[in-house]
Amino acid sequence: MVGDHSSKQYDHELEGIRSKVLLMGGMVETQFDEALNAFRVDNAQLADKVMADDQAVNQLEVQLDDACSHLIVRRQPTANDLRTVMATIKVITDLERVGDEASKIARTAKSLHERGLVSFNHYDIVRTISRATADMLHDALDAFARLDGKSALQIIAQDDEIDYEFRTILRNMITFMMEDPRTISAALDTLWVAKAIERIGDHAKNIAEYVIYVVEGRDIRHCKPAAVAAGKGAG
Amino acid sequence: MVGDHSSKQYDHELEGIRSKVLLMGGMVETQFDEALNAFRVDNAQLADKVMADDQAVNQLEVQLDDACSHLIVRRQPTANDLRTVMATIKVITDLERVGDEASKIARTAKSLHERGLVSFNHYDIVRTISRATADMLHDALDAFARLDGKSALQIIAQDDEIDYEFRTILRNMITFMMEDPRTISAALDTLWVAKAIERIGDHAKNIAEYVIYVVEGRDIRHCKPAAVAAGKGAG
Repeated sequence: MVGDHSSKQYDHELEGIRSKVLLMGGMVETQFDEALNAFRVDNAQLADKVMADDQAVNQLEVQLDDACSHLIVRRQPTANDLRTVMATIKVITDLERVGDEASKIARTAKSLHERGLVSFNHYDIVRTISRATADMLHDALDAFARLDGKSALQIIAQDDEIDYEFRTILRNMITFMMEDPRTISAALDTLWVAKAIERIGDHAKNIAEYVIYVVEGRDIRHCKPAAVAAGKGAG
Repeated sequence: MVGDHSSKQYDHELEGIRSKVLLMGGMVETQFDEALNAFRVDNAQLADKVMADDQAVNQLEVQLDDACSHLIVRRQPTANDLRTVMATIKVITDLERVGDEASKIARTAKSLHERGLVSFNHYDIVRTISRATADMLHDALDAFARLDGKSALQIIAQDDEIDYEFRTILRNMITFMMEDPRTISAALDTLWVAKAIERIGDHAKNIAEYVIYVVEGRDIRHCKPAAVAAGKGAG
């Protein structure tokens, strides 16, 4: 009965941590959304807010890492339970990095604003990759909330589209710069924004991989997509 | 006496894991070094080797994560001991990402080689940032091996120099591209390489921060350098 009580307590504490991770996920989604808005409408105040909000995200990362450590020490989880905690620790790291990338987008938006540089519709260039990545991040958090391995698999497949989209942007920007060298500086800034978005896609993919690790108990990091779909782990 | 025995066994297993992490560190240092060589002397074969070696690094990451989990479940560490395991798990993630960045450098080197694009001394542009970053990574691994908090603090301060160097490269490349738009594609590739190097510096900084977390028991992520030097943690 003590074991049973302890296990319930463990589940309760773990749920508390998972809720806070989802809260952190919501915070970085907002950061990402607002950073893109600041980039789209050339709004320096909004860019400042995104960068300021990163402090709260960073603090939450430290708090949640601590909570995970305490949970392990106090509740001494079984191998199975520990898998969830380990995956949660990794998800926290990825979410913090999403916040960092959103801040970079905001910083670039502000820099473009201050230099009054924009000579082409820079937001239009990253619109498609932004939407696809925002959806992917949202879906990854949703899969983490519901521990849904099936939708996690679909999310992982989406990362290829985002990489493809990034390469398209890169080619377009090169053409742009060659046609009018005066656009080079603004085009590079747009490329940095696209790169930050692509990285957010990578983090969303990582989160989806950790969901599969929890659900199916196999580590699919570094597997080819075909092997993942066929149910093979890394090794 | 059982506790004592168990604690010795724990120390022994932890040392085994730490040795393997240092082995992994040596592997990614070699990847980084060879990727830069491939970029310098335009060697596609060497670039291929770097990318192939990434498989072994990835496998080691999965194995080491597993070893850390097993250690926690079997030895049920105290809060103090757990801090070292948690930091080790984070160091493993950063090392794997260093391997990814080295692979990106190798891929760019190969792409430049295949397109026969190089019209300027591209390696010369990243030489300073490469050396500073290779030193920083080496020092970070050394600080992790010796759990040397003092040298970890010095490493963290070095990251600003690397960021400064990156911004210098960016300005130079913009000038380059504006003067001769035919260099745009090769200049962009050089910028991606510089960006990957800068990221490796970020990972070295992360590793140094985890060393301080183990040694001093405070979490200095997201602190201003002055606060770090003054002995304050995050919060």
